[in-house]
Amino acid sequence: MTTPVIDIDRLVARLDQLAEIGRIDGPNGEWGNARLALTDDDKAGRDLVVEWMRSLGLAVEIDRVGNIVGTRVGDNMALAPVMTGSHIDTVGTGGRFDGTLGVLAGLEVVEAMNSAGVTTERPVAVAVFTDEEGSRFPPDMLGSLVYAGGMPLEAALAIEAVDDGATLGDELTRIGYSGGAPCPPVAAPHAFVELHIEQGPVLEAEAIDIGVVTDVQGISWTEVTITGRSAHAGTTPMAMRRDPGYVAASITTFVRDLTRRFGPPLVGTVGRIELVPNLVNVVPARATVTVDLRHTDDDRLGEANEMFARHLDELAESENVEITTRSLASFSSVEFDSTTVDRVAASAERLGYSHRRIVSGAGHDAQMLARICPSGMIFVPSAGGLSHNIAEYTAPEHLAAGAAVLLDVVLDLASGTVAD
Amino acid sequence: MTTPVIDIDRLVARLDQLAEIGRIDGPNGEWGNARLALTDDDKAGRDLVVEWMRSLGLAVEIDRVGNIVGTRVGDNMALAPVMTGSHIDTVGTGGRFDGTLGVLAGLEVVEAMNSAGVTTERPVAVAVFTDEEGSRFPPDMLGSLVYAGGMPLEAALAIEAVDDGATLGDELTRIGYSGGAPCPPVAAPHAFVELHIEQGPVLEAEAIDIGVVTDVQGISWTEVTITGRSAHAGTTPMAMRRDPGYVAASITTFVRDLTRRFGPPLVGTVGRIELVPNLVNVVPARATVTVDLRHTDDDRLGEANEMFARHLDELAESENVEITTRSLASFSSVEFDSTTVDRVAASAERLGYSHRRIVSGAGHDAQMLARICPSGMIFVPSAGGLSHNIAEYTAPEHLAAGAAVLLDVVLDLASGTVAD
Repeated sequence: MTTPVIDIDRLVARLDQLAEIGRIDGPNGEWGNARLALTDDDKAGRDLVVEWMRSLGLAVEIDRVGNIVGTRVGDNMALAPVMTGSHIDTVGTGGRFDGTLGVLAGLEVVEAMNSAGVTTERPVAVAVFTDEEGSRFPPDMLGSLVYAGGMPLEAALAIEAVDDGATLGDELTRIGYSGGAPCPPVAAPHAFVELHIEQGPVLEAEAIDIGVVTDVQGISWTEVTITGRSAHAGTTPMAMRRDPGYVAASITTFVRDLTRRFGPPLVGTVGRIELVPNLVNVVPARATVTVDLRHTDDDRLGEANEMFARHLDELAESENVEITTRSLASFSSVEFDSTTVDRVAASAERLGYSHRRIVSGAGHDAQMLARICPSGMIFVPSAGGLSHNIAEYTAPEHLAAGAAVLLDVVLDLASGTVAD
Repeated sequence: MTTPVIDIDRLVARLDQLAEIGRIDGPNGEWGNARLALTDDDKAGRDLVVEWMRSLGLAVEIDRVGNIVGTRVGDNMALAPVMTGSHIDTVGTGGRFDGTLGVLAGLEVVEAMNSAGVTTERPVAVAVFTDEEGSRFPPDMLGSLVYAGGMPLEAALAIEAVDDGATLGDELTRIGYSGGAPCPPVAAPHAFVELHIEQGPVLEAEAIDIGVVTDVQGISWTEVTITGRSAHAGTTPMAMRRDPGYVAASITTFVRDLTRRFGPPLVGTVGRIELVPNLVNVVPARATVTVDLRHTDDDRLGEANEMFARHLDELAESENVEITTRSLASFSSVEFDSTTVDRVAASAERLGYSHRRIVSGAGHDAQMLARICPSGMIFVPSAGGLSHNIAEYTAPEHLAAGAAVLLDVVLDLASGTVAD
C-alpha cells in the first residue's frame, strides 16, 4: 500500500474522451458540448462512464430516475457510503467541465485508491445524477432532487421535455436508463462532497486555487405565458393592439431593471423567448418567456419575485393581455454543513493550496444531497468566469488541485487507512 | 345575353371550400387558415383554383415564379387584358378572406359574365400571385414584384424559406408550379383592379360598404441579428454580460416608443424573436428580431428608420454586442392611378353603395402592378378590423358589394357589351 495520488493526465484524458460525445467546435479552436439530458448523446456518455466504473471494480446501480451510482467496497459494508459525484448532462451550448469534472474526478479518486491499494472503512460511491441542468426537463438538479426526496418519483417521470414533449420516464426507458434501484435510496449516504468548476470569475480574479463553498444561492425559475390577439402588422392601429411580443420584451427589460434596483448579488436572466406565430408581419397571438432569478438571501429573492409579479399584473392591465405564470423551479438558498466545509478548508490548507470561502452562484446536486446528509463542495477556477459556453475552461493544474482536495476529503470521511 | 350578376352563395361556397385546405379551428368556433407559400397546402389550394379556372373556360398559364393567370377570351385578342386577382397564400395564423377574396371574386366575375353570355372587347384575366404574404419567403408581394419587373427572377428563385431554408425555386419545382411563361410577362395588362378586405377597422367603424383605395403606405422590414456571449445565468455578474436577449427586448420596446413619438399613421411591429440557444438558464449567444415599420409618407418612414438605426448603434455600444441588419423588404408608398380610382368610386356610386376614399395600411399585389399599368383597389369591411388572425371575417353582404363593384369596373375597363 502506497500513498494514493491523483494522475492528472489520466483525469484529463477521461475528460477529453467524454467530451468527444456531443462535441461542439467553436470558430476559434474552443470546443464544448451539447449533451442534453436523456438524448442519444447523454446515453453514449452514460455508457462510457458506466464502462469506466465497471473497469475500476465499482458495483454499478441505476435507480428509477436514472441516477447512476458506482460503489467501491469498504471494510464495513454495513456503514453508509461516502458519496461524491455530479452530473454529465450539459446545456445546449455547454462546456467540457461543468458536472463532468465532479464525476470523473470521483473516478480518478477511486483509481488512485485502487492503484495505491488503499482500503477504507466505509464504502465510497461515485454518483452521476440525471438532468442536473434542467435544460430539457425542468427543474434543474432533478435527479438529485428526487434522490433527496424533494420531488415524488412519479411526478419527475411525467415531466415533459421542452424540446419534443417526450416524458422523462419514456426517455429513460428509451435510452435504457430506467433502473430498478429505489429512488430515494433506502439509506442516505454518510456524507456527500462534490468537486465543480466555479462557473464564475471570483477565484481566477483573486488567483486562488480552491473555493470552499459555504452556501448556494436561491433560485427561482418562472415561465410566463402572455396571450393577446394576433393581428395584421400594417393595418392594426397601435392603440388597438394586444401584443404579447411587446409584453415579453417589456418583461425582459424589467428583469434587467430589477437587478439594477437590487444590485448584486441578485442576477436575472430571460434565456428563452418564444412568439406564436413568430412571423415578421403578424402581431403575435401568444408569447412565452422564462425568468431566472437568483439571490443568496431568500428574503431578498422573495421580494424580487413579488415585485416581478406586481409588474406582470400592471402589464396585463395596461396592455390588455392575459398573463399566466408557472414555477419551473424554486430552490431556497442552502447553507452547507459547517463540519464538512471546515474539512474541505483543512484539506486545501494541508495540501498547500490557496483557498477562500465562496458562495455558489449556480445550483448544484450537492445542495439537494444537503437535505439528507452532511454535504460540501470544492470549487476550482473557471477561465474568464465563463460557463454554459463552449469556451468554458479550467487549467490542468486547477483540475489536479481540486481532485487532490477531493481525494483527501473522501479518505478522511471514509476513514481510510493510508500509509504515511 | 342578360345582365351579369354576382351570385353571393356561389362566391361564399368557393371561399369556404378553399378555406378547408390548411384549416385552423379556434376555440370559439372561428376558423382560419395556415397556407404558407409553396407548402403542400398551398399546392392543394392552387390545384383547386386551377381546376375552377379550367371549368370556367379560362386559359391557364403558370409563369416562372409560379404566378397563375387564367384568361377569358376577348373579342380582340390583340389587346392587353384587363386583369384582376390577388393571392391565396396566408400567414401562419391567417384568415379565410385575405387574398382569397380577390382571386375567387375574380372567378365569380368570370362566371357571372359566362352565365350572362357577356363578351368583352379585351380579354379578362384572373391572377393568383405567388407568396404575397412573404411569411415564408420574404419580401412580401414577391410574385407580383417579379411580375412587375421589380426583382430579377433568378434572385427571387434563390430566396430561402425562413422555416426550412428551402429555396423558392426548389419549392416551386417540388409542388409542380415552376411554369414556363415568362415573368415579367411579354406585355403588361391594360389595367389591374384588386378586391381585398380592408384588414383594418375604418370601414366597419364608419359603417361604409366600399373603400376606394387611393394609396398604399410604405413598408420597411428589417431583420436584426445580435451577437453577444453565451454565459451561465447564475454565476455571470450582470455587469459582465453581453446579452443579445436583452438587446432584442430593448429593440422591441424601442419600436413601440418610436410609434408613440411619431404618432399615427406610423405602425411598428416586432413579430419574430429568436434566441440561441433559447434555454432558461443560459444567457443567449445570439438573437434575431424582425422589425416591420409602415408609414404613408416615405420621408417620415425614412426618418423612423434612421432613428431606429441610431438606436441600434447605441445599443451595440452600451451592451457590448455586435448588431447586423438586413433589409427583408422596402417598398415606397404608392399612389394609385387617379382615373382608375375615380372609376372604382363611380361604380360604387352607380350601384348605390356607401363609399369613402381610404389609404391601405397593408401591402398588396396591386401596388406592384401599379408599376406597369393603371391600377386600383376595392376594399370591403373587416369585422373588428381583424386580419392575419383566424377570426378574420367579412359579412356576405359586404363580399357581395365588393364583387359587384369589381364586376362593374372590369366590364367598364374591358369595354364589355352588356344588355340593359
